[in-house]
Amino acid sequence: MEQSFFKQHISQRFNTELEEIHSRVLSMGGLVEQQLADAVTAMVETRSELAEKVVTSDYKVNAQEVELDEECTEILVRRQPTASDLRLVLAVIKTITDLERIGDEAERIGRMALHFLELDRQTAPISELGEHVRGMLHGALDAFARMDVEQAVRVAQQDIHADSQYEVIVYRLMDQMMSSPEAIPRAMDVVWTARSLERIGDRARNICEYVVYFVRGKNVRHTSYEQMAEEATGDRH
Amino acid sequence: MEQSFFKQHISQRFNTELEEIHSRVLSMGGLVEQQLADAVTAMVETRSELAEKVVTSDYKVNAQEVELDEECTEILVRRQPTASDLRLVLAVIKTITDLERIGDEAERIGRMALHFLELDRQTAPISELGEHVRGMLHGALDAFARMDVEQAVRVAQQDIHADSQYEVIVYRLMDQMMSSPEAIPRAMDVVWTARSLERIGDRARNICEYVVYFVRGKNVRHTSYEQMAEEATGDRH
Repeated sequence: MEQSFFKQHISQRFNTELEEIHSRVLSMGGLVEQQLADAVTAMVETRSELAEKVVTSDYKVNAQEVELDEECTEILVRRQPTASDLRLVLAVIKTITDLERIGDEAERIGRMALHFLELDRQTAPISELGEHVRGMLHGALDAFARMDVEQAVRVAQQDIHADSQYEVIVYRLMDQMMSSPEAIPRAMDVVWTARSLERIGDRARNICEYVVYFVRGKNVRHTSYEQMAEEATGDRH
Repeated sequence: MEQSFFKQHISQRFNTELEEIHSRVLSMGGLVEQQLADAVTAMVETRSELAEKVVTSDYKVNAQEVELDEECTEILVRRQPTASDLRLVLAVIKTITDLERIGDEAERIGRMALHFLELDRQTAPISELGEHVRGMLHGALDAFARMDVEQAVRVAQQDIHADSQYEVIVYRLMDQMMSSPEAIPRAMDVVWTARSLERIGDRARNICEYVVYFVRGKNVRHTSYEQMAEEATGDRH
């Protein structure tokens, strides 16, 4: 696996450790992607066995976060990394926090799906937002895999569309609730699901910000998308 | 200021740096507490000028997070801390992330209050939950100030009550929406506010977990309250 974005150290062991935490983030990311995919499918295709699976699998995501966090602390202690090595470790620590919280949101959607399916077997109108947010998470992990800032900026910008889709869904649901108050409990489950998806979009954007931080050494958390794009095209440190 | 929980170093400058990031977290925490207090008051007492103040002040919280995060990275590079020093720096990095997100939730409540006040000047039934969550944040920051694990565990446990109060509010609002559909837009603003408060409770609990991590060297993120209490009473590393 070519990872030219990692500094090469005289210590082969240190290289391996850095490559390992990087690839473990991706494997944790794969698990979280699966959780999200299953949660959305459970809600859209009214499949309770998938919802159950999501709810009972969240502990795996949590366990990976704890292990990886400890591994990062170990590296800080043993290797005392500086410059881009330190940025990698810090980017990993932050990314796994967001991944774990995305896992929590997927679990919430899973629980919502179970509740929703009890009420009714109608389809929830969240498949488009669900697809979009899944695409964002996948794109963010891909940017993290290749430490590709341009891709990170592109994915971060997709959050604008996630937010507007979310707004549309909520307003539409409020209209439905006003015209058929008996459907309120069901509509509220969809509202919570849409909210969770919107938050997952925010967290995918966070991961993109850590990619820019690793590559450019700049914190772009509170900057506009334009500023973020500017940083991304700047000179490599 | 007595800070016997910090290891004393030969380098007086290093001691000062650690004390400084610790006390800057508390000052950032104070600002976030004020934002939360103003947001809740704006919503409960229908005061739009306070809501405006919250919305326009969030950038201060963000700026403090960015500065403190950079300061922590600097310390990692220059001091290459280990053991409890490293845990302090990591606990600070994580705490300020949660504080910044609490600031975002306060801003959301502020925006909700502005929208809510446009619709109606009725009082939102969130004062009890608001008070409870404010108390949790204050207690978490106090535990962080004194690195008091017993207090941290007590505050973390208060999240159970926050969650149940939140559930009660949402069910009550759903009943109201079903009986008076015309009140749905107003009720939804209150739902979002209650949700933000519930999330702030979660984040106050996170801060308590970092206190246990700093003092005991244990990650208690995915443990039960009982296990957390057990860790807290364990032997100091």
